[in-house]
Amino acid sequence: MKIVVDTLGSDLGSSEIKKAIVAFLNKNSDVEVIAVGNEAELKEISDKCEIIHAPDIVPMEAGPLEVMRMRNSSMFVAINEMKNRGADAVISAGSTGGFLSAATLSLKTSTNVKRAALIAPFPTKIKGKKVVILDIGASNENSPEELNQFAIMGSEYVKAVFGINDPKIYLLSNGTEEGKGSPTGKQAFNLLKNNSNFKGNIEARNVLSGEADVIVTDGFTGNVLLKSIEGTAKMMSGMIKNIFKKNLWTKLGYLHVRKGVKDMSETMDYKSTGGAMLLGINGVVVKAHGNSDAYSFECAMNVAKNLVDSKVVEKIEKGLK
Amino acid sequence: MKIVVDTLGSDLGSSEIKKAIVAFLNKNSDVEVIAVGNEAELKEISDKCEIIHAPDIVPMEAGPLEVMRMRNSSMFVAINEMKNRGADAVISAGSTGGFLSAATLSLKTSTNVKRAALIAPFPTKIKGKKVVILDIGASNENSPEELNQFAIMGSEYVKAVFGINDPKIYLLSNGTEEGKGSPTGKQAFNLLKNNSNFKGNIEARNVLSGEADVIVTDGFTGNVLLKSIEGTAKMMSGMIKNIFKKNLWTKLGYLHVRKGVKDMSETMDYKSTGGAMLLGINGVVVKAHGNSDAYSFECAMNVAKNLVDSKVVEKIEKGLK
Repeated sequence: MKIVVDTLGSDLGSSEIKKAIVAFLNKNSDVEVIAVGNEAELKEISDKCEIIHAPDIVPMEAGPLEVMRMRNSSMFVAINEMKNRGADAVISAGSTGGFLSAATLSLKTSTNVKRAALIAPFPTKIKGKKVVILDIGASNENSPEELNQFAIMGSEYVKAVFGINDPKIYLLSNGTEEGKGSPTGKQAFNLLKNNSNFKGNIEARNVLSGEADVIVTDGFTGNVLLKSIEGTAKMMSGMIKNIFKKNLWTKLGYLHVRKGVKDMSETMDYKSTGGAMLLGINGVVVKAHGNSDAYSFECAMNVAKNLVDSKVVEKIEKGLK
Repeated sequence: MKIVVDTLGSDLGSSEIKKAIVAFLNKNSDVEVIAVGNEAELKEISDKCEIIHAPDIVPMEAGPLEVMRMRNSSMFVAINEMKNRGADAVISAGSTGGFLSAATLSLKTSTNVKRAALIAPFPTKIKGKKVVILDIGASNENSPEELNQFAIMGSEYVKAVFGINDPKIYLLSNGTEEGKGSPTGKQAFNLLKNNSNFKGNIEARNVLSGEADVIVTDGFTGNVLLKSIEGTAKMMSGMIKNIFKKNLWTKLGYLHVRKGVKDMSETMDYKSTGGAMLLGINGVVVKAHGNSDAYSFECAMNVAKNLVDSKVVEKIEKGLK
């Protein structure tokens, strides 16, 4: 198995990515890593993996055309290496929009796939249980037919990554009853009814309840959902920290609940989920968090490996026949 | 000033609503309240306000047509009283969909208003500062022209209720740059540019940051946003409670932070915001929370009074000329 890593573009710099590569390779000696980035920075890991020099960094706000034009950027070269060398997966922590659209343009959507979708796992109220939501931002709008395909793509992801064989699929809506939803959502509901794992509409307030395995939504709404969960969790975490900082007594109080607060932070921490994946493309394309540290990036590499191992790309092609 | 109160439909029963009416009237002797509901239950407050007997309760899942057919329901009669008696405001804690659509059908949208919108204040990171978001669910989709009107309607609400004269208006989007957004959102952005208070796109993760006074979005997306904030806050509150319940030491720890946790719960508690209001209708229409207790319902009555006092309905008509 060959995994191409874009070592630039993370807010925390390439040193964290280097640590992640070393840690990953120590545990996965059978995987070959191709590290793309600044040769000088990567020298010290050159005994462990192949290094390709491409020192330009794609700016955060770059669109697909800019990425395609930046031929010395680590991102462009990484995607290109994936394509030309027949590697199995490519991972980047750089500009989401740029990476996803450049990967789509370059690697193309798989046979039968109408539109690629960005998918990510979310924590739920049930300890250890995750729910995946797609599309969380690859598109700005989606057709009912695309939403119907997302259900199948999401199911194959959940089967591959979490080993859930009969994933419960829901459609994000503004009410649970049939007949609720945007005009597109209502049409999608009718198509989804033919999927025996489809359980109906789910409201945003129950997304994290743990009842669903896969939640289908259009890319615009999914992006709003993702970011509002993130924003609310961040705001409340900040409030909790302030409560304990107040005085000596509250600081003492913290000593007793330290472990609990840490557990909660970990549950709500998207870093441990390994980022998002672009489903429906010819190859495994993983977008790690923009502020990836070594741990977080290693998680993303593990997700990539799992997806290659479980042949999720081939299974989606088959599932959509 | 005359306010019509639907005393049925709250999950906690009419006794809480009665308490709210008494508390409100004790502080506002100049306001006349018309209480609609079960006469037997309301007897004890008959010296304080007019009672109208209408004992049927509109079911939670009722649509507008069902409400219009339930001629002995407290909700139908309350809306009707508002219209026929020329009352200034109507408040209900019953079925959201039923109440809003029946009120729209019966009271009609104001001159120049294309579509009514449900608006609610949300807490922000900045202590005491609130942001209003509209539409949070009166519609399933909205046109760019409607979104443009929502900006003006929301501004008038913020001026009236919070006394903010130059409200900062944002459009909910999937990125901050111009050019981001759903196809409808992009068109709305172009219209909104003519509004001097419009500050551009805002991402869902910054909705609660306190930078915006008014956030404009379509009813479907707004509903997802509202419910995901609610769901995430509820999940995290539950986690925090569990942390302190663990053992004697964590319980002791709680003693030190009790006040802080209570403050946080209050900030995130939608009960204190007084529910949502339907803007753009001929009259003040307030939807109190379905599980309104006396305090929460009294807040909703205060919101109604403020909106009548500040002539928000007339100001919206004028603003949209």
